[in-house]
Amino acid sequence: MEEKILRIFAKHKNTHVSGEDISRELGVSRTSIWKHIEALRGVGYEIEATPHLGYKLMARPDRLIPEELKEGLKTKFLGKKILCYKSLDSTNDTAYNLAENGEREGTVVIAERQRKGKGRQGRHWASPPGGIYLSCILRPDIEPKEVAKITLVAAVAVAASVRKVAGVPAMIKWPNDILIKQKKACGILTEMKAEQDRVEFLIVGIGVNVDTPAGSLPKGATSLAKESGASPSKVALAKKILENLEHYIGIFRKEGFSKVRDEWHHYSATIGHHVKINCHDGKIEGQALDVDNDGALVVRLDTGFQRRILSGDVVIAH
Amino acid sequence: MEEKILRIFAKHKNTHVSGEDISRELGVSRTSIWKHIEALRGVGYEIEATPHLGYKLMARPDRLIPEELKEGLKTKFLGKKILCYKSLDSTNDTAYNLAENGEREGTVVIAERQRKGKGRQGRHWASPPGGIYLSCILRPDIEPKEVAKITLVAAVAVAASVRKVAGVPAMIKWPNDILIKQKKACGILTEMKAEQDRVEFLIVGIGVNVDTPAGSLPKGATSLAKESGASPSKVALAKKILENLEHYIGIFRKEGFSKVRDEWHHYSATIGHHVKINCHDGKIEGQALDVDNDGALVVRLDTGFQRRILSGDVVIAH
Repeated sequence: MEEKILRIFAKHKNTHVSGEDISRELGVSRTSIWKHIEALRGVGYEIEATPHLGYKLMARPDRLIPEELKEGLKTKFLGKKILCYKSLDSTNDTAYNLAENGEREGTVVIAERQRKGKGRQGRHWASPPGGIYLSCILRPDIEPKEVAKITLVAAVAVAASVRKVAGVPAMIKWPNDILIKQKKACGILTEMKAEQDRVEFLIVGIGVNVDTPAGSLPKGATSLAKESGASPSKVALAKKILENLEHYIGIFRKEGFSKVRDEWHHYSATIGHHVKINCHDGKIEGQALDVDNDGALVVRLDTGFQRRILSGDVVIAH
Repeated sequence: MEEKILRIFAKHKNTHVSGEDISRELGVSRTSIWKHIEALRGVGYEIEATPHLGYKLMARPDRLIPEELKEGLKTKFLGKKILCYKSLDSTNDTAYNLAENGEREGTVVIAERQRKGKGRQGRHWASPPGGIYLSCILRPDIEPKEVAKITLVAAVAVAASVRKVAGVPAMIKWPNDILIKQKKACGILTEMKAEQDRVEFLIVGIGVNVDTPAGSLPKGATSLAKESGASPSKVALAKKILENLEHYIGIFRKEGFSKVRDEWHHYSATIGHHVKINCHDGKIEGQALDVDNDGALVVRLDTGFQRRILSGDVVIAH
């Protein structure tokens, strides 16, 4: 019902609309309309009520709630169902549980903060209010070894979205971070349930520091607000991320990873730089040359040999 | 308490032991001992009670219950905790849920039947009474692409166990079936929760048709009882599988897959044969040459080209 009322406000931009008109259009009592107006005010909508004139929407909240996220979202399957939370332990865990219970591809879980936000390799991801924490359920027909590419595809989608909405020079650090001026502003955590040769489902989790207070961010991290000097809309950015993610996943599925890889290169903060990498089997150093068609980082070691790295923590030398 | 009483019976093999003696040794009343004796009878122990002489254990049941499975189990970590069920939807699903909630490596889930037994690729695995359905929680420090090798390692463990306990010529059909005279007698389903480059946990599920009634098996399947003309002990086989699985996983971890691969070749029903394979991207035919160090099947196509197959359904020509 709240969504229907907002749609009526959208039709009456900058003017008042009477409670009686709303009540007639939606076929419910004026008392009921008043209760829904109160509910909208409760989540942050500024709605003026003037005697004889009626209600007028003065301001929409920048909150990750269904009414805002669904408004004008240009996707075909991603985010057609969005579950929004003020606070969750981990959006990835909630999405994973849903997927295990058969939730369909495209469903998105969003939280305004996480109590136990997760990073790669079992690490913590600081998730205070002011960020976007969203997880998407995907059911691609791929093998587990291809999942690394989905993370790179998601990184392209996030970098492009951040550039567009916040106007900052977002770069991708292989494999899963988005940097602004060498500081971490977003991260991606892809988790799967799989058999040895078949992915059952994927959870692509994306965390973005939007206007996160500086004091609540770990060392080496930054926020879009700090880097842009403005306060980017969380709602606009979350929607753009979903739209871009669907777009690039579509390219990946139809045309293969190589088509997305070009764009990845365009945003890469890693290629061409001297890197130190902590791998499973020790530390290596060398020049990051490329990402290959498996999503592996190709490094020319200081010894002259080339190596393909599928997993590791990278430090970029500048 | 039942386990303690069985241990006392084990010390008094083929003789009677009085209720008073048991009661004194365990420090509980004779009425309580009588109740536990009744409980043991309830799960299939034949216990004779003779006035003035006491109790005598006449026969142990061949049932997948903790008292039987833990007795003399020679493992260090696998099956130190065993959860036994008369019936479950799927031992893999139960083990998966436990692992998600932090259950440690080595815990085993066993059922005497499954209501929704799972095979590869979302298929059904017929799981009537008379079989062994067990799932092991493993937490190896490996990447998802290495999981295929764990299935092959498990296949070696199962084939060796079946040969030892049932005395039948068990062979391994790549990737995950155990055949006897070209009919399926056991299957392995490995599932994982993973990040793109790190396995969080693995569930290795093993189904064995032991003395499954012929009428309840699908076409192309057989049971160990049918092939051996005897009734192999489910308890002895389940224990041997756990022991061998721990053994071969140990070799895999310490010395690498190549050490287990030799044994795999020894049992292989695939290598050297002409095979038809349904893969992701179509059907191929050729000569199965080898399994490589990634666990992939190497096939020389009829066109002369070689191909590495990581995933597919194999039909062996004879």
